[in-house]
Amino acid sequence: MENTADIVICNATVVTVNPGFDIIQDGVVAVDNGRIKHVGGPGSFPADAAGEVIDAKGGILMPGLVNTHAHLPMSLFRGLADDLPLEKWLSEHIFPAEAAHITPANVQTGTVLSCAEMLLSGTTTCCDGYFYEDAVAEAVLRTGIRAVLGQGLVDFPTPDAPEPEKNVDRAAEFVQAWKSRNSRIMPSIFCHSPYTCSADTLQRAKQAAAAAGVLFQIHVAETQNESALAGIPVGISPVKHLADLGVLDENTLASHCVWLNAVDISILADSGAAVSHNPESNMKLASGIAPVPALIHAGVPVGLGTDGCASNNNLDMFEAMGFAAKLHKAATGDPTVMDAETVVRMATIDGARTLGLDSLTGSIEPGKAADLIVLDTRRPHLSPIYHPESHLVYAVRGADTMHVMVDGRVLVRDGRLADMDVGEIIARAAETGAAIAQTDTRKS
Amino acid sequence: MENTADIVICNATVVTVNPGFDIIQDGVVAVDNGRIKHVGGPGSFPADAAGEVIDAKGGILMPGLVNTHAHLPMSLFRGLADDLPLEKWLSEHIFPAEAAHITPANVQTGTVLSCAEMLLSGTTTCCDGYFYEDAVAEAVLRTGIRAVLGQGLVDFPTPDAPEPEKNVDRAAEFVQAWKSRNSRIMPSIFCHSPYTCSADTLQRAKQAAAAAGVLFQIHVAETQNESALAGIPVGISPVKHLADLGVLDENTLASHCVWLNAVDISILADSGAAVSHNPESNMKLASGIAPVPALIHAGVPVGLGTDGCASNNNLDMFEAMGFAAKLHKAATGDPTVMDAETVVRMATIDGARTLGLDSLTGSIEPGKAADLIVLDTRRPHLSPIYHPESHLVYAVRGADTMHVMVDGRVLVRDGRLADMDVGEIIARAAETGAAIAQTDTRKS
Repeated sequence: MENTADIVICNATVVTVNPGFDIIQDGVVAVDNGRIKHVGGPGSFPADAAGEVIDAKGGILMPGLVNTHAHLPMSLFRGLADDLPLEKWLSEHIFPAEAAHITPANVQTGTVLSCAEMLLSGTTTCCDGYFYEDAVAEAVLRTGIRAVLGQGLVDFPTPDAPEPEKNVDRAAEFVQAWKSRNSRIMPSIFCHSPYTCSADTLQRAKQAAAAAGVLFQIHVAETQNESALAGIPVGISPVKHLADLGVLDENTLASHCVWLNAVDISILADSGAAVSHNPESNMKLASGIAPVPALIHAGVPVGLGTDGCASNNNLDMFEAMGFAAKLHKAATGDPTVMDAETVVRMATIDGARTLGLDSLTGSIEPGKAADLIVLDTRRPHLSPIYHPESHLVYAVRGADTMHVMVDGRVLVRDGRLADMDVGEIIARAAETGAAIAQTDTRKS
Repeated sequence: MENTADIVICNATVVTVNPGFDIIQDGVVAVDNGRIKHVGGPGSFPADAAGEVIDAKGGILMPGLVNTHAHLPMSLFRGLADDLPLEKWLSEHIFPAEAAHITPANVQTGTVLSCAEMLLSGTTTCCDGYFYEDAVAEAVLRTGIRAVLGQGLVDFPTPDAPEPEKNVDRAAEFVQAWKSRNSRIMPSIFCHSPYTCSADTLQRAKQAAAAAGVLFQIHVAETQNESALAGIPVGISPVKHLADLGVLDENTLASHCVWLNAVDISILADSGAAVSHNPESNMKLASGIAPVPALIHAGVPVGLGTDGCASNNNLDMFEAMGFAAKLHKAATGDPTVMDAETVVRMATIDGARTLGLDSLTGSIEPGKAADLIVLDTRRPHLSPIYHPESHLVYAVRGADTMHVMVDGRVLVRDGRLADMDVGEIIARAAETGAAIAQTDTRKS
């Protein structure tokens, strides 16, 4: 039937993020069988033939946000230790907490907590990398969110892999197990970094990812001394090192990329690799300021990410948008860089592109997955409205999220999780957190 | 009666921000006659003798936030024009909009809108500077918020003052009219800047403020070329210029202070003047990064501010706290600067100090005004909790504000304005915004 739909959303300011960045006043979007069927102006689709009509009440309807870099289980370490030198933070707090508490059960507790937070703040697709990624995937699957999930690997023993030499094979097995299981879960391989993975590990892991046709992820150039840490010869940058190893291509996502020189930017652009920008984490850990306007200018696809909750300390992509927009204005002295449209694209379609998902999600166009969010703009801090894209970057907060759907399934309705028990999620996080606090060395 | 109180708040994690920064688990605070009567642990005050008991439900109870720099009516220009060079933004958008639309009635519409936003996001004291400050004061008074309100003055004609030569006298009259009218309204005189006020204006305005014993406010060193703009001799900084004129003392609040050299910092410290730090505005306008850790180290009282909504674009002090904490870590390369406790103090007691109000508000201590907020922590993005002060800076959002009281009067209850019609406030803002959009040159 041409004019029927499962859901029609009406009375919305539709920020499509299509190639023309069209914004439709009093727009209508029809969703059928999990896909966007129609996008148009007022009255352009008959609401009476819809299974359900959602009245956006004049709010903003936009593509769900794409968080291109997170470590979902680490929400359990949110605020465990802040304001410390990186080395002390890692070696005295995060690593011991991981060694003592990272079990498949706790990984699932943290993952569900993170998915709840992300959905409630408008994120419909996330990209993760951690240990016990099979447990992460089982937990993510139950929440309904869309996710790229990377099995993490390093060259030393971890809670989930006491024999590092088997890491690449295990990651490849994870990919095979999840490759075709559910269309919302895309498995991936995540080499932690050039300083925790040898050249051999990096190449074998990339080959395994390439053979399976999945995303290869890696932290790159997060801190200034990464080449030294990695034992890379003086004068060779981490990006050059990875390029020489052949691991940079269109299916590689390089996270952070703070310490890049002009040659690195050219290498990235030529390779087709994408970058995940994590402004809040880079600022909080004093890692530095990534040259994002230059990367965009060079044609590198750049998505936005929050990083894990241990270094942010939240997963609110609207907050990340505000930081991305403002940080680079301060860093460059140019108030015109990272304008609102650029930042909205980075948090949606460009993020989807970095994950290889831009034909599926990241914009409101007929045929794409119905990954949609509705923001309640009937609030003092969003009044008046002149330019919707400005509000998305400079005024909207995650808490303004009213409705969220992924693949046409409503996961948040009227600001509440539709199918998850938020009280139970919080109670389990508190219980696990109490155990983590017991073994941590810092006392409040 | 020793053990009676108007209101008892129980079941709260009390972040007192007292000199020892004590945090009381399962704490109780009693409020009587607008003042804090008691602060203690569980069961330390009998709830049955209270007129009302507020159950904080395990949330955080803290002093209301102090926003040390805002232009309240400018919420009407929120998002009117972003991502533009400063000069173009001002001359093509903000100044024309002010010339066409700043009337006493519109000033009140914007002020009430701003007060609603501030109260809903946990701010109980604000410091303003604008035109038609008498209208601002009338509007603020009705909302119940505490405010320092500065009549703005410049050496050219403005909507409220066509004869600039009478500006200082008019500002002095405003101060006299409001000096004793209501204990929550503290009048002030706000010279716009060294480049819009002559030496003579600055000195006469400061003398008028000093004679009345009120705060003298001024924007200082916001942009790099301010000395040139002000026609100050080469080699003389804006701070030195103001010090030479004798306008810097304990009753002066210098806003922004981005472009300071080491001598400027010493001058400020020696003078006793205080600084309002506005990280989001400075970043968004690409003004630069204020040397806040150095100012604090030198002993300068530094408060936090949002600046007006035309350059932020919101009044959320929790967001400002996150920016302040992270910006200076990135700028200095030191993740230990601007730790959570420092930033919480900056947003509360230190802000109150910059306004001369620290004996009255900014901490939870017996005898002080009951300017209190309760945050709902039963939310995924605030779970788990290890260190409450960390959450206040890195995870809490303004929307987590559950209850707000000023002088013991509950102004926000369960996240809603108790005595203001938010629908009407938004409708009036939308109506005024529509008129402003009609005359603006940028079309969406």
